[in-house]
Amino acid sequence: MLTTDQLDQVIVVLMGARNPLNIGAAARAMSNFGFSHLRIVNRYQLAFREARSAVGAPELLRAARECADVPEAIADCSLVVGTTAGGSRRIEHPLYHLETGGKRIRSHASAGGCAAVLFGSEKRGLANEDLSYCHWLVRIPTREQHISMNLGQAVAVSLYELIRQDNAPARDAVVLSATGAELLRMEQALLAALQANDYIKRGAEAATEQKVRKLVRRMALSSEDAEAWTGMLAKMRPRARKTRHP
Amino acid sequence: MLTTDQLDQVIVVLMGARNPLNIGAAARAMSNFGFSHLRIVNRYQLAFREARSAVGAPELLRAARECADVPEAIADCSLVVGTTAGGSRRIEHPLYHLETGGKRIRSHASAGGCAAVLFGSEKRGLANEDLSYCHWLVRIPTREQHISMNLGQAVAVSLYELIRQDNAPARDAVVLSATGAELLRMEQALLAALQANDYIKRGAEAATEQKVRKLVRRMALSSEDAEAWTGMLAKMRPRARKTRHP
Repeated sequence: MLTTDQLDQVIVVLMGARNPLNIGAAARAMSNFGFSHLRIVNRYQLAFREARSAVGAPELLRAARECADVPEAIADCSLVVGTTAGGSRRIEHPLYHLETGGKRIRSHASAGGCAAVLFGSEKRGLANEDLSYCHWLVRIPTREQHISMNLGQAVAVSLYELIRQDNAPARDAVVLSATGAELLRMEQALLAALQANDYIKRGAEAATEQKVRKLVRRMALSSEDAEAWTGMLAKMRPRARKTRHP
Repeated sequence: MLTTDQLDQVIVVLMGARNPLNIGAAARAMSNFGFSHLRIVNRYQLAFREARSAVGAPELLRAARECADVPEAIADCSLVVGTTAGGSRRIEHPLYHLETGGKRIRSHASAGGCAAVLFGSEKRGLANEDLSYCHWLVRIPTREQHISMNLGQAVAVSLYELIRQDNAPARDAVVLSATGAELLRMEQALLAALQANDYIKRGAEAATEQKVRKLVRRMALSSEDAEAWTGMLAKMRPRARKTRHP
């Protein structure tokens, strides 16, 4: 997992983004996942200016840098990675799956190197000129029949891969499982309710008891839920048959 | 990795999405990653109608189903998972990291079970009423200071996790490394160019040769690039010194 300092070693570069909503969405995903350095190479300054007022991550957008060209945007970066949703049309570049490329970017940042991740414009992706500054490319694994991703979503997915934990702890909040004693209380409450309501056939008592015991265990209940069940079942024993035989 | 049939076992349910652009973006991410079943539970039909004309995935949106409520949307699903960007405020539900929850959803779909993944509205996320239908929740690992994700990006990141390959092949296109013979040709061209330009000091020939050999190997060149270098270096030997000593 990347530390805050290491997240700061990753720089997102948007090349020629035209839609202010997409610039805002890219900034929002960066902020969601803990990245802070955005650089924008754009001949159309309007898009950027409008994005500054977009919802999402106003501070990050205020701190974003406008750059005249790629060399300025990547001047301090020792690794430059281009993103593409496309196939392998540019074989002069090594093309990594996002899963693998993400690991390489992480390693670079962990070792203290600065890495730029370039995203192309909505319509055309990265131009050949932009690609010529890249050490290698990563491909987001979209399917061939619908390759082209929305820019904000491409940024979100790429950054998610960078902060993703291979060995994430399974659960955030551990729900305590019911103990043997709690399950036994519930099992007895259920049996009593069944008996009181004439569910159990004569001679089948032992078989029903076993059936009920297994049924209760298969539910994988929490302590709280086992108690809730026990309470509900306790109410299901008609004391007198008044209502049924008035 | 999920097969096409297994991808079809995963159903995306949008609860109360208000912005047609977000519905369109969700559909686009689904199409990018190969999912096809979208269901929309929405009292505000307008958003859905406008989304139908949004760019991205018109066919998928045309096939999307409008449902009156959660029970209708999940009627055929044997697993219902809620998504949340939040912390652990609802501890009555098991809360899995997306990485782990994604694996569980994949297992369910691989085994032939139908799984619904619920996304809440832009403003409030999933309501308690919606959550009560969920078997468990997954949390997208946004940072505490900026928890709330854009809906379209949340859908993209969640679905990416489902189609993500733990053991993705490293490279899509293998760039062939230069052979020993190609590197030797380049090394000789470089040495010859250095010699012709009086770079090598007398007595340092052997040391320079070794230095150059290592330098060339460290470049990790492809066959094509080694050849390009060899060609360029071959031109760097002034035949006569005309230009320098006119």
